Amino acid sequence: MSNVPLTSLQEFEEFISVFPKLKQDIIDTLVEKKINQEIIDWVGLSIDVNPIGGKYMRGLSVLNTIKDFKGVEQLDEETIFLGRVAGWCIEFLQASLLIADDIMDGGIMRRDRPCWHHYPNPLIKNLNGVEQPIGKIAVNDAFIMESCIYILLKKYFREKPYYTKMLELYHEISHNTFLGQLFDTSACHSLKGDFSSFNLKNYFQIARFKTSYYTFYTPVALGMLMCGINYLDPQYDAMKELLLEIGEYMTAQDDYLDCYGLPENIGKVGSDIEENKLSFLICQALNYATPEQIEELKKNYGIDNPENVKVVKKIYNDLGMKEIYRKYEDSQYIDFIKRIENMDDKVPKIVFIRLVNRCYKRNR
Amino acid sequence: MSNVPLTSLQEFEEFISVFPKLKQDIIDTLVEKKINQEIIDWVGLSIDVNPIGGKYMRGLSVLNTIKDFKGVEQLDEETIFLGRVAGWCIEFLQASLLIADDIMDGGIMRRDRPCWHHYPNPLIKNLNGVEQPIGKIAVNDAFIMESCIYILLKKYFREKPYYTKMLELYHEISHNTFLGQLFDTSACHSLKGDFSSFNLKNYFQIARFKTSYYTFYTPVALGMLMCGINYLDPQYDAMKELLLEIGEYMTAQDDYLDCYGLPENIGKVGSDIEENKLSFLICQALNYATPEQIEELKKNYGIDNPENVKVVKKIYNDLGMKEIYRKYEDSQYIDFIKRIENMDDKVPKIVFIRLVNRCYKRNR
Repeated sequence: MSNVPLTSLQEFEEFISVFPKLKQDIIDTLVEKKINQEIIDWVGLSIDVNPIGGKYMRGLSVLNTIKDFKGVEQLDEETIFLGRVAGWCIEFLQASLLIADDIMDGGIMRRDRPCWHHYPNPLIKNLNGVEQPIGKIAVNDAFIMESCIYILLKKYFREKPYYTKMLELYHEISHNTFLGQLFDTSACHSLKGDFSSFNLKNYFQIARFKTSYYTFYTPVALGMLMCGINYLDPQYDAMKELLLEIGEYMTAQDDYLDCYGLPENIGKVGSDIEENKLSFLICQALNYATPEQIEELKKNYGIDNPENVKVVKKIYNDLGMKEIYRKYEDSQYIDFIKRIENMDDKVPKIVFIRLVNRCYKRNR
Repeated sequence: MSNVPLTSLQEFEEFISVFPKLKQDIIDTLVEKKINQEIIDWVGLSIDVNPIGGKYMRGLSVLNTIKDFKGVEQLDEETIFLGRVAGWCIEFLQASLLIADDIMDGGIMRRDRPCWHHYPNPLIKNLNGVEQPIGKIAVNDAFIMESCIYILLKKYFREKPYYTKMLELYHEISHNTFLGQLFDTSACHSLKGDFSSFNLKNYFQIARFKTSYYTFYTPVALGMLMCGINYLDPQYDAMKELLLEIGEYMTAQDDYLDCYGLPENIGKVGSDIEENKLSFLICQALNYATPEQIEELKKNYGIDNPENVKVVKKIYNDLGMKEIYRKYEDSQYIDFIKRIENMDDKVPKIVFIRLVNRCYKRNR
């Protein structure tokens, strides 16, 4: 059975089907610690809610990488299962990041449900029949979610020769993501009209640290580790750089879609302009705008009012933003494909082609 | 030089003297990652502020344990240095916990300076000359502080045979501490007058998970690991239980001092009653109080008003709380000493005697 290639939908379903077991593994460790049942239920609810509901792009990529490196016919049931477990650990990291992100941003909704800190507090509710939000103690749930990663890695990978390297990888990319988050929050907390940190160099550094490492680099690095390949070997430096740049590319696309995508496709109404975001579009606009246009942008960017947003979008249009973006998207794509073609045969090119093609010309 | 025993004050100073190097190690990794200078400065400030200013009881205990297990004369410079590094890593964990704790509690001051989320934001200040607090993005700094642990462990312990076990220990006790924090916050967020979770069983479970593991168990376990001893061996189970109970004991003392200690000794004005804390004293009071007294406690506990606090303290006095506490403190002490005396000689008793004696009859 393991030798029959699965369609993406089948793999998606198989990936999901592993989750209840992983949740139970974590609950079992709490029971073993003789933790109070109310607390176990709380953690269980948090696990039911927070890692669930995304596209699992990161989680699915681990097993894809293993398949590409080893060949589907070489995989046994255990390797396939472990590829999914390692993938779920990235989804737990993502869940932890989103809980924290939403607290810091004051988010309301996430993946069609209330953000975790707005979720009804399961304990207070029991006391007086009125729903209270979880509130600030969600911070601690972000830490618990992160610590679940290491429970799962210990349970499933402890005997593997690459176990310690795997722990180090999670430490490293978590740290990088927090650094990216710090850079992003501090840049976005600039005062309105202050564009001093709004440039593409900062933009891509934030994207690289906040998103690329855990989204593109980690799944491939994990898959390689599990194939017995030392992903840290300098011979893979170009591959790493490529993965990080693909992440930057995807982030720029997200920003484009925030402004020009259809709400029914992207699942939200874009608000980067209103929220004074250091976005790809504003950085590009500042590159091309006249001094007069920059003055107009300073006056109107970062204000939650349709009139001001309209002025910003008009300037984007006057600058030919769609065309600027198309050129960027195409030239990056061509560059990526060339670099993949020029790679030697130590790594299967399909890994990267799949990632680039998933991004190129996407509208959601 | 390493063979001359140091006084506690000397060891305190030696411990402190290691810190600038560890800070620099972390900064060096950020420079290597080519992180923006403003972000490096931010992390540097956070490291200067958050792990500093405590008593370093946890951090100092690691080297003490190593000395007790190996004998001072057996220690070389490297072991002494590494004992201090491992100790600082607990202080970094503590720093991360305090940042998060203060956000969740809405704390104002910590160790005679503003809580980190109330600290002036170093970036916004530069922009308009007015100080803004760091605010909610302090959540991310708590994560960065935690991730510094693994940078240091990797740098200094990577080649050690116990490295992986050390990582697992940090994962495990961090996880336990977050669980204790969850239990504590959820119990303390009970509505005023609801004492359904206020009992000694819950109290000691919270103390054990939130405090004992990282405060008493971890320094000893780390010291043992560094002496090549497998602290997880079942032969050390009784020792582990003793350490966890000493932590519970210390927590009960903290609660006693919150009510009966002198502000000049404990460095703060106690406020457990006002804050509806699940404290050792209220649990004891509920054990001894008449139904009428319990009604009075329900009406007055958890209200930030001197009149209500006075009623609670009067009931404590009527119940003979000081005497209840003295009996607990003495009988626990005698029990600890007996258990230490009955231990076999695999572990040096001085480790535990020092910890118990540091707690017994303390007034600060």
